[in-house]
Amino acid sequence: MPKLNFALIGAGRIGQVHAANIARSDYADLVCVADAREDVATQLAARYGARVDHAESACQADDIGAVLIASSTDTHARFCELAARANKAVLCEKPIDLDLVRADACLAAVAATGVPFGIGFNRRFDKSFSVLEAALRRGEIGQIESLSIISRDPAPPPADYIAVSGGLFRDMMIHDFDTARWLLGDEPVEVFATGSCLIDPSIGEVGDIDTAVAVLKTASGVICQISNSRRAVYGYDQRIEAFGSKGMLRAENQVPSTVETTTAEGIRRDPPEPFFLERYGDAYKSELKAFVRAVVTGDEVSPSGADGRAALALAEAAAESVKTGLPVSI
Amino acid sequence: MPKLNFALIGAGRIGQVHAANIARSDYADLVCVADAREDVATQLAARYGARVDHAESACQADDIGAVLIASSTDTHARFCELAARANKAVLCEKPIDLDLVRADACLAAVAATGVPFGIGFNRRFDKSFSVLEAALRRGEIGQIESLSIISRDPAPPPADYIAVSGGLFRDMMIHDFDTARWLLGDEPVEVFATGSCLIDPSIGEVGDIDTAVAVLKTASGVICQISNSRRAVYGYDQRIEAFGSKGMLRAENQVPSTVETTTAEGIRRDPPEPFFLERYGDAYKSELKAFVRAVVTGDEVSPSGADGRAALALAEAAAESVKTGLPVSI
Amino acid sequence: MPKLNFALIGAGRIGQVHAANIARSDYADLVCVADAREDVATQLAARYGARVDHAESACQADDIGAVLIASSTDTHARFCELAARANKAVLCEKPIDLDLVRADACLAAVAATGVPFGIGFNRRFDKSFSVLEAALRRGEIGQIESLSIISRDPAPPPADYIAVSGGLFRDMMIHDFDTARWLLGDEPVEVFATGSCLIDPSIGEVGDIDTAVAVLKTASGVICQISNSRRAVYGYDQRIEAFGSKGMLRAENQVPSTVETTTAEGIRRDPPEPFFLERYGDAYKSELKAFVRAVVTGDEVSPSGADGRAALALAEAAAESVKTGLPVSI
Amino acid sequence: MPKLNFALIGAGRIGQVHAANIARSDYADLVCVADAREDVATQLAARYGARVDHAESACQADDIGAVLIASSTDTHARFCELAARANKAVLCEKPIDLDLVRADACLAAVAATGVPFGIGFNRRFDKSFSVLEAALRRGEIGQIESLSIISRDPAPPPADYIAVSGGLFRDMMIHDFDTARWLLGDEPVEVFATGSCLIDPSIGEVGDIDTAVAVLKTASGVICQISNSRRAVYGYDQRIEAFGSKGMLRAENQVPSTVETTTAEGIRRDPPEPFFLERYGDAYKSELKAFVRAVVTGDEVSPSGADGRAALALAEAAAESVKTGLPVSI
Repeated sequence: MPKLNFALIGAGRIGQVHAANIARSDYADLVCVADAREDVATQLAARYGARVDHAESACQADDIGAVLIASSTDTHARFCELAARANKAVLCEKPIDLDLVRADACLAAVAATGVPFGIGFNRRFDKSFSVLEAALRRGEIGQIESLSIISRDPAPPPADYIAVSGGLFRDMMIHDFDTARWLLGDEPVEVFATGSCLIDPSIGEVGDIDTAVAVLKTASGVICQISNSRRAVYGYDQRIEAFGSKGMLRAENQVPSTVETTTAEGIRRDPPEPFFLERYGDAYKSELKAFVRAVVTGDEVSPSGADGRAALALAEAAAESVKTGLPVSI
Repeated sequence: MPKLNFALIGAGRIGQVHAANIARSDYADLVCVADAREDVATQLAARYGARVDHAESACQADDIGAVLIASSTDTHARFCELAARANKAVLCEKPIDLDLVRADACLAAVAATGVPFGIGFNRRFDKSFSVLEAALRRGEIGQIESLSIISRDPAPPPADYIAVSGGLFRDMMIHDFDTARWLLGDEPVEVFATGSCLIDPSIGEVGDIDTAVAVLKTASGVICQISNSRRAVYGYDQRIEAFGSKGMLRAENQVPSTVETTTAEGIRRDPPEPFFLERYGDAYKSELKAFVRAVVTGDEVSPSGADGRAALALAEAAAESVKTGLPVSI
Repeated sequence: MPKLNFALIGAGRIGQVHAANIARSDYADLVCVADAREDVATQLAARYGARVDHAESACQADDIGAVLIASSTDTHARFCELAARANKAVLCEKPIDLDLVRADACLAAVAATGVPFGIGFNRRFDKSFSVLEAALRRGEIGQIESLSIISRDPAPPPADYIAVSGGLFRDMMIHDFDTARWLLGDEPVEVFATGSCLIDPSIGEVGDIDTAVAVLKTASGVICQISNSRRAVYGYDQRIEAFGSKGMLRAENQVPSTVETTTAEGIRRDPPEPFFLERYGDAYKSELKAFVRAVVTGDEVSPSGADGRAALALAEAAAESVKTGLPVSI
Repeated sequence: MPKLNFALIGAGRIGQVHAANIARSDYADLVCVADAREDVATQLAARYGARVDHAESACQADDIGAVLIASSTDTHARFCELAARANKAVLCEKPIDLDLVRADACLAAVAATGVPFGIGFNRRFDKSFSVLEAALRRGEIGQIESLSIISRDPAPPPADYIAVSGGLFRDMMIHDFDTARWLLGDEPVEVFATGSCLIDPSIGEVGDIDTAVAVLKTASGVICQISNSRRAVYGYDQRIEAFGSKGMLRAENQVPSTVETTTAEGIRRDPPEPFFLERYGDAYKSELKAFVRAVVTGDEVSPSGADGRAALALAEAAAESVKTGLPVSI
């Protein structure tokens, strides 16, 4: 595989993960780093021998083959369009935009250019979730009849982040909506969602919830439950259970070690990995590799912009369901 | 504890379980057995040296202290009333009646007599569920924020049973509604339910579903999910997960042995217990013991008639939610 | 199965377990109880409506079909002989005698009478161990190549018991020697054992050890490890691991419930069952049932007197190995 | 941490692992690669932009700070001496030599130079084993009383490798002897070992065994069991169990995913990782990092040459025990 030259837009927490993965891979080079905070960009670029640039020019530079967009959400759509029009392959962190109309405009603009375009739904590249998906496709549990996804963060983000996050469904459960679509292999036609603010009153004060359940149903009657919480004191809780006509598949949490301590108090194992950097560290590498391979071979990038759009639409429907108290048809 | 003399009404599958538990216990005697099929009653009575009687007289006989009602659902309310008026303690299998109005009339009649009255919600006496409940009460996971109950039968009952069963919510999920109330320690104020017929078309033909999810919410915002299926090919799937401010409690399935077989194909353990006789065999014994103790000591019987009523009301609400497609307030 | 009339010799802790199992079974009656302490015998007999008798006459009474010997070890051989000569079926707790010569004399005397004779090696009737054994026989792991048995008591017995126990190998590891022979399906030809006194100095003062490992080898080269400790603070640790040409079988400890508690400290399950009454409660019932069935059908009783003898011989060899520091051929 | 320049001697399977780890680390550079097969060295060097050299000159080159020796066993001692005399830090794969006298001569020569010297016992850097060791040191199970190590390869190596391997104890169990010493925190004073050839007759034909058990004892009476097999059809079986006065620690196998499949046949998880590249992939990285840190900071390298010597001495004693059939004092 020839190496693909990357510009990285956004040098924050997740940008740093991508930078390391690009720089240490056999199939990509980190050529350029941009961030609204120039010192942050400079520091990250220096670590991997990349140059610093402004986001706009980074998206369009001649020596760049692909742009990875990990900047703040409100800049995603604009940078996607800019990079696509400069004929760069684009890998964009979710969501494309908090607003579905804006996301659609972006997708149309990108589609017009014909460049490879992918969305960073990292769950699809998690080892255990991939194994579960493959078993499902092989028919190990026959026809899927129900699906349950649990996704809990270790601690709520600060209230000022919550305020601009688009709300729990667009910010957090959007990942699970994508996972649901991926595993169901079919489109939900109805969403019912309900939520509460049980953890942090300041989340409620900005009009958001911290605890939520959504129920999705496909045209063929398969039912999917998603459960989210902004705070699991024991770590990052990311599990899937698929039930079908011939059995059940469960992907349990990943734990740091296999050590069991047995004392008079019981048998104790490690709590789950603390957060996404640990749990999805390898998934980010696999995501990058799959993206580069698709770009290089000309295969379709997956998950695609359409996948990003569909998950966002489900998030909007769930938010509406909470607001109206009624199920929402898609 | 002095021994309590039992009349058993109903000598079918579950009646036979109760007969054995009464006869072999240190605190109860099986004095009398009744069943609409006299030969079935005779055979069961003979095994434990009990006499055979008609249900009506059995409910009122002088030497009887308690009546255990395990006959067909449509006879429950009548026998409850008969036994209560004869001043017998009553332990009745769920549900009191498929119709909430009829159940209420029965409960009023029984209440007027002042006899001890209990409903056979066996889950409350399962060892693992009891341990979970006790941990919850001790505050091991702080304040409960969400609850998930999974309940799947190994195989659907025959369609002719389904037709008179009252439907999945009154026949099957009613147990989970009781479990939810017991663990939440609070009353649900809203129910949303959705269901499908994915397993056996003949279930759909009599107007029922075989796959269902319900979402309950309490006034304080705690959310409970219940998932039911009429067919889990791997056995009887009965699990609970409670999530709270300080952690999570999970009661997993019980398996027949602890043996693990590791081969090139993987690490294999036993599937869950096949059905309720195996999974809840000990729970039935504990249920009986708790009932007798309450009768003897004069303590309140738990779960009570009011618990039976509340679970039935949730089942009705869930059925209505499926019918209307809307959440239902309780 | 016609009911078999039992005399129980010994009304201590283990005698009480047997009494309850006999009295509550469908295939046996507890007719008579004897114990050196008459009040203890009287109390136990009263609970199940049995008569009290002296051990000697109990062993020979006309209305008795089988004698279960659960008295102190030094009386086993004599009561076995007495009962056998009176033509009673005999089920004797291990060991037959602490002295192999005396045990052999007893076995010869019993054999001369032709009565059914069994030894109470309860492990063979444990559900998980039975499942493991059956899988081994079915060839699920091909040819067995090595075996590992772990057996740890929750706490050491008092030093005065240790002093008359015959030592760790005859008193405790004898169970594991029987398990080893049962699972290996072949006779060990060499034993190496080593031990230490690490837990309780008073055990060392009476010349015994509290921590020991034995290594057995069969003629075909299969190797078995046994590890014993007199104190596992977390409960009764009873595990088996069999390794073969096609895989591995592990029987893990039995735990009281399936509940897992996940907190910031980790994922905690119940410790193993506290001791043998809990872990082997069902095994004692199965043992009794198998014995009665063999007596009634005329099948060979298993484990047999010869099994009791062979385990004792291994215990003697292990004790000699510790004394000499050398492996001992059998 | 300044980067340390490495020469890698040996470009085979394990050499390639080290090459990648050095080249991709932040604290080391791969400067030079040597291998008896020049094409193999050339190919590996090219991948990471290193130069190719002869082993002798690579060990002594001016721009080299550390030499990693991963060549065939019979060359280890010579290259260690060469590199040490050229004042390079040395990290040598186990064993130093198959012969203890030769190993001692090498250690003396290296010691005379004063260079940092480490042995590649990778188990010490395995995440789960490290967690277990740390818990042991923290006193989580009180005083250690017994230790059990299981180590099984997925498949036996070819007979021609066996013939020059030094035998199972020096080639395979040597890792477990080191693990035992590390965890016991004390020196074994006696070794008893026994073995069989059960898997591959060609192993027996060259005078080796494929199945073995060793029992080690320390002066204070702590007992350690080690069990080895050359063939576990289910993968790489690497487990540790430590038992102490306050509990037990178990490090179980690492599995590729957390997925559980439940069907009518049971509950199935992944088999263990297939072999050492998967299981100890991260351990090799940690080993390298610890070595570089020690070299840079001047701390003592661990495991040290003395550790390599001690494990080899235990392997020799075990081999002698099998030969003589007797325990061997250290």
